[in-house]
Amino acid sequence: MLDLAPQLTAWLDEGREVAVATVVSVGGSAPRGPGAALAVDRGGSVIGSVSGGCVEGAVYALCEQVLADGESVLEQFGYSDEDAFATGLTCGGVLDVLVTPVAAAAPLLRSALDRAAAGVPVALVRVVRGPARLLGRALLVTPDEDPEGTLGGGAALDRTAAAEALAALDAGRTGTVEVSEDGSRCPGGVTLLVESSLPPPRMIVFGAVDFTAALVRVGKFLGYHVTVCDARPVFATRARFPDADEVVVDWPHRYLRTTRTDARTVLCVLTHDARFDVPLLEVALRTPAAFVGAMGSRRTHLDRDRRLREVGLEDVELARLRSPIGLDLGGLTPEETALSIAAEIVATRRGGTGVPLTGAVTPIHRVPVSRTA
Amino acid sequence: MLDLAPQLTAWLDEGREVAVATVVSVGGSAPRGPGAALAVDRGGSVIGSVSGGCVEGAVYALCEQVLADGESVLEQFGYSDEDAFATGLTCGGVLDVLVTPVAAAAPLLRSALDRAAAGVPVALVRVVRGPARLLGRALLVTPDEDPEGTLGGGAALDRTAAAEALAALDAGRTGTVEVSEDGSRCPGGVTLLVESSLPPPRMIVFGAVDFTAALVRVGKFLGYHVTVCDARPVFATRARFPDADEVVVDWPHRYLRTTRTDARTVLCVLTHDARFDVPLLEVALRTPAAFVGAMGSRRTHLDRDRRLREVGLEDVELARLRSPIGLDLGGLTPEETALSIAAEIVATRRGGTGVPLTGAVTPIHRVPVSRTA
Repeated sequence: MLDLAPQLTAWLDEGREVAVATVVSVGGSAPRGPGAALAVDRGGSVIGSVSGGCVEGAVYALCEQVLADGESVLEQFGYSDEDAFATGLTCGGVLDVLVTPVAAAAPLLRSALDRAAAGVPVALVRVVRGPARLLGRALLVTPDEDPEGTLGGGAALDRTAAAEALAALDAGRTGTVEVSEDGSRCPGGVTLLVESSLPPPRMIVFGAVDFTAALVRVGKFLGYHVTVCDARPVFATRARFPDADEVVVDWPHRYLRTTRTDARTVLCVLTHDARFDVPLLEVALRTPAAFVGAMGSRRTHLDRDRRLREVGLEDVELARLRSPIGLDLGGLTPEETALSIAAEIVATRRGGTGVPLTGAVTPIHRVPVSRTA
Repeated sequence: MLDLAPQLTAWLDEGREVAVATVVSVGGSAPRGPGAALAVDRGGSVIGSVSGGCVEGAVYALCEQVLADGESVLEQFGYSDEDAFATGLTCGGVLDVLVTPVAAAAPLLRSALDRAAAGVPVALVRVVRGPARLLGRALLVTPDEDPEGTLGGGAALDRTAAAEALAALDAGRTGTVEVSEDGSRCPGGVTLLVESSLPPPRMIVFGAVDFTAALVRVGKFLGYHVTVCDARPVFATRARFPDADEVVVDWPHRYLRTTRTDARTVLCVLTHDARFDVPLLEVALRTPAAFVGAMGSRRTHLDRDRRLREVGLEDVELARLRSPIGLDLGGLTPEETALSIAAEIVATRRGGTGVPLTGAVTPIHRVPVSRTA
């Protein structure tokens, strides 16, 4: 439910009572993963979704029931061919959905939502299966503070849950963990839903060139916090990149050395000028970034590769470089070029291949180890 | 220059004098194709671009020269390694660029720009190489009216040019044609730049589901005129799809049977309900559309394939269907799913493969047979 934090906190501020349905786990082919949420208030207003449309109606009805009787429920939605026709879709998937009442007075859930809305890393742990007295209990875990709340099963269970939550948060992962009530990590009848919320990942685009504006737009579309960096003040202006979160005038390698990057950061080098690219890529390929790509012709690539070896980069570092950047879509316009770069970023971060799903045997929905964009 | 029509007509309305640089042809690796344009007014304001940043400075200076002396010029921009460093980039490409002065008083160019700005199909033919007295002459060709203007080489040359322009317009193609001054189609010393302008291609998204809003946004980003169609009035609302050009409440197959489609139209079937999909795809696969894709699991696909055969679709018709729709990017969020669909649309229309450009031998910039989005 943390993915709905901005709207949910606004609803709670207005004093609305809400039932929130959260996907706990998925089996088979399902369009949205654990953590995806749908919320319904007493007036019948809806935000969010738990599937590509498959079971929204049934989940909506369940939310109304939970609003009426105030009890959390865990329900499974499966699809026989008959069910599929009844609800109008035929995914062939199975969804476990937790529906919980949330009111402004629930301090722990409110605290989790406030942090998520503010872009602060937070993990929310809830008991979705286990002894009746634990059901619906919650624990809030952040990297820098003591956990809030308790799962109601004793200090050892809380400690184990907090450790699992920190690991999940570090990986940006949302999903279930099986433990025992005594805190042992052996599956022992208690299922925890660990929901992570992280601030948006960063996209840093180096080079304020003509393709940059289109790449910034598609980066925002995918949910990135987008920075444009170029050493030339006449090109790196807010007016040229109104969609960027920030525009930085600085030497690319100097900026990258001082700014924060992590394993979700994507770095796109569009300068395609060796004077900027070589010192920048020397730094970029040694960051933990998820994606480092550089624009240029194949000739530019070979020349750049040679220069990067001259400054001491090793095979294992150079192997990370996506160059020429992008998937081969045959795109002609700046927007199509930006789309080919964005497609390679998604494929790299999510483990896709880029081949058409038609006729392939790759799964359509991968195991969603991470729902965090 | 027709790609700048909306802004250029506004400039001309203000009485500005403008020099317009238009890419005539490209050799080697160049980021933008024939027809890409950059315009500069007497005050030094700039719109558009002719390359990914490579030669903008040099073309800008040439525009200033043309504004000063009023003469059209054709100039080639090539890149030795030294040039590349001088202009800051190293594409390895060669560009032929035509720079022409355009004032509000030039009725033929103004007429072409007005039609392009209004989204009416129009082809502009200009002599870029040949006898001095023909240079810079222009002919305006539309599907339904007699050509305007003359290339100055006699009626036979105008007839040949108009026929070539109509063929280019039909294909949405911009590029050069070699002819003789006597109107013969044998290359004989006259090079014509034929620039086509067509209204935006259509994207019709069937099914007002959760992925639809994201697909509409990325369709608009790529320059499509986007229609959402669903039979259910409660889902097919403008409020849910504010970015769509139109939202139609109608049975998908009935709407598709009566609306205009052409070889640039893309049809995305997201309903994934056999009740809607089967009658819709029966119509869709017999339109001239560039792309027909349908969402669904592999099980849904097999079931749909069987039903479509039952209603009489043949192998050759079914072979056009992209199902499951999209490239395998491993996307998890609705935006990532929409991006994978958009990537398959671009690859299908432009002849790309979807594989990473890194390590591949596919050309980075394909021969731009069509610059029309």
